[in-house]
Amino acid sequence: MYQVNTNYLKLPGSYLFSTIAKKVAAFQQANPDKQIIRLGIGDVTQPLPKVVIDALHKAVDEQASAETFRGYAPDLGYDFLRNAIAEHDYRSRGCDISPDEIFVSDGAKSDSGNIQELFSKDNRIAVTDPVYPVYVDSNVMGGRCGNYDPHTGMWDQVVYLPCTAENDFVPDFPDQDPDIIYLCLPNNPTGTTLKKDQLQKWVDYANNKNAIIIFDAAYEHYISTPDVPHSIYECDGARDCCIEIRSFSKTAGFTGLRLGFTVVPKSLKCGDASLHDMWARRHGTKFNGAPYIVQRAGEAIYSEEGQKEVADLVSYYMENARMIREGLTAAGFTCYGGVDAPYIWMKTPDGMTSWDFFDYLLEKANVVGTPGSGFGPSGEGYFRLTAFGTHENTKAALERIKRL
Amino acid sequence: MYQVNTNYLKLPGSYLFSTIAKKVAAFQQANPDKQIIRLGIGDVTQPLPKVVIDALHKAVDEQASAETFRGYAPDLGYDFLRNAIAEHDYRSRGCDISPDEIFVSDGAKSDSGNIQELFSKDNRIAVTDPVYPVYVDSNVMGGRCGNYDPHTGMWDQVVYLPCTAENDFVPDFPDQDPDIIYLCLPNNPTGTTLKKDQLQKWVDYANNKNAIIIFDAAYEHYISTPDVPHSIYECDGARDCCIEIRSFSKTAGFTGLRLGFTVVPKSLKCGDASLHDMWARRHGTKFNGAPYIVQRAGEAIYSEEGQKEVADLVSYYMENARMIREGLTAAGFTCYGGVDAPYIWMKTPDGMTSWDFFDYLLEKANVVGTPGSGFGPSGEGYFRLTAFGTHENTKAALERIKRL
Repeated sequence: MYQVNTNYLKLPGSYLFSTIAKKVAAFQQANPDKQIIRLGIGDVTQPLPKVVIDALHKAVDEQASAETFRGYAPDLGYDFLRNAIAEHDYRSRGCDISPDEIFVSDGAKSDSGNIQELFSKDNRIAVTDPVYPVYVDSNVMGGRCGNYDPHTGMWDQVVYLPCTAENDFVPDFPDQDPDIIYLCLPNNPTGTTLKKDQLQKWVDYANNKNAIIIFDAAYEHYISTPDVPHSIYECDGARDCCIEIRSFSKTAGFTGLRLGFTVVPKSLKCGDASLHDMWARRHGTKFNGAPYIVQRAGEAIYSEEGQKEVADLVSYYMENARMIREGLTAAGFTCYGGVDAPYIWMKTPDGMTSWDFFDYLLEKANVVGTPGSGFGPSGEGYFRLTAFGTHENTKAALERIKRL
Repeated sequence: MYQVNTNYLKLPGSYLFSTIAKKVAAFQQANPDKQIIRLGIGDVTQPLPKVVIDALHKAVDEQASAETFRGYAPDLGYDFLRNAIAEHDYRSRGCDISPDEIFVSDGAKSDSGNIQELFSKDNRIAVTDPVYPVYVDSNVMGGRCGNYDPHTGMWDQVVYLPCTAENDFVPDFPDQDPDIIYLCLPNNPTGTTLKKDQLQKWVDYANNKNAIIIFDAAYEHYISTPDVPHSIYECDGARDCCIEIRSFSKTAGFTGLRLGFTVVPKSLKCGDASLHDMWARRHGTKFNGAPYIVQRAGEAIYSEEGQKEVADLVSYYMENARMIREGLTAAGFTCYGGVDAPYIWMKTPDGMTSWDFFDYLLEKANVVGTPGSGFGPSGEGYFRLTAFGTHENTKAALERIKRL
């Protein structure tokens, strides 16, 4: 008689963004005349860059002829893409990462969720709080988080690293030693990040404690401050204790195209076990490569023209971030982030809870944001707005919020 | 101090096809003048159907304009594709499967590897033997297979269901009750399948034993025999005990495009736990949808023209299957499969082991096949050839084998 993985049953409610989608759909149905503006889920709105479109058409044509047709991709990614990533994202920044340490995938969400499989069930995870929900949820499924307390919103086996206005969003080292530390920098949802010397301390800490850092750098393209690292491999010793996850979703608008990658250095070992070999084995067994045409699209953004188009895309969204940050501040709200990241993290007014403010904003301004408490207990009393809308919608949303 | 998932370290050697690729590369390097013909890995060789190419170009153009751009896909797949699948693959065959029971993914390999996550670590799996290695390997990673005995090639916690010439490739019910039963029909690698009454007995068995069947129907498009079911949902009671996995890879040449789906009926429950809800939760947490452009490509094969092109593609490969089967038989070999599946399963001559015959064929005929023992202990003494080559290569390979 079969039994299910009961860890799944411990997860409260549905995935954060599914809950929001249901609430918004219910509101829209009850108020069909209201024009809702969505600054909630971090989906992009601008079309794909021209170099990407051209690369896709070209690759599709190759698939139309027997001479140029490509079937199964190499498990770990095509060399043309792995070489471009190693050169542009790592070597150009002085990071010692070789192409065969790069594993191409269908996106950072899959990698973020799957990476925990490589570790013992008995390992204890630490997460900055608040943070992208996938790290904790995937570890709950993997049986590492213990039990959930609905009153505190906390799992009793997770080490939370609060990042709030009180500590300037810089996490302190925890009392209890974690085994696996998830850092998402620039952070989703707070839009804040760490400077090089601050991140170096975490790498040193991990090496001292024999912990591993899972570094999610999905938003690194939005960094403009000079001494903020784009990769954790800019820090000394990171090759011995860090895995880095990257995405093309926000960099080049690939949310609907699906492409990302994970870096697992060959020097990363746990005793005799090579994490690189284990991740390669996982790819070979449970994944069959990202589509050829999508890998060609990814390669295209590394051309000179591609880099220019990507920079324009990032500028477009960061202009929204500036508008939101300045507009809300002028309206009397307290805001964080939005400088090195496409997220603005605002304090809810008058001590409202995050979900109360979500409902208030949806009902009174017909604007959708994301309740901070959905990202972890220390997110309570905060609210996330994203810069991924159009200029027009962003302006309109701000006007509505100012009128409240 | 972090620890790895030691189940990974139990896996012997590398994934079957990686091992073959390395052997072939070494032979080619040592013999640069030899023209190797690959009938080993089941990758297709014919270009994508025209309807697919047209749909891809059209969808790519939509991604070039803000008005028609699509970002994140719905977690479980676009309705246009789920509706087409439900109508053409299920309702048209009298199977009661609704669109919201269909979960679109990046391919059957991912789903085959990931589905075990839904079940308790204490569950015991059964596999037909020989079979596609992903079922066992992914359960080894999940901690369900016990220990490997290199002498027998068996895991001590796996229930093997031998399928050999002796039982006409029809598995018997095992002495020990399994919890999770993997059936791949038409079978990879034997190319054999079960008739409706034979499959119905397995569905009844699973319902009696409270076991669940994971039914991999990746090759259903190659079925030509009338009373062979294309879907397990053609059997009575299957909605209560079966999950079905399908692929576009072999149906329409999508090996490099990546698209598949899994059917989890809403009626499939383990106590109060809904497997449908659990799989939805996994998709929502660890996956972000198949690319929009690829889902449009999948939709295209369900058009009238698409169905014609897919039928032509299947006919092309099945003509290879006929040539191989008849050619080898005429040359004195004993062959199975190749009627309802694109695989021919031959007995190795003179009692050679599968790997000895692999080496012999590679060295003497420069033809690559797949050693039967790589698919499980009962595959020893057999060898798999695929029909996915070109007519020309298939003919040439046969000439070489006949001359041995």
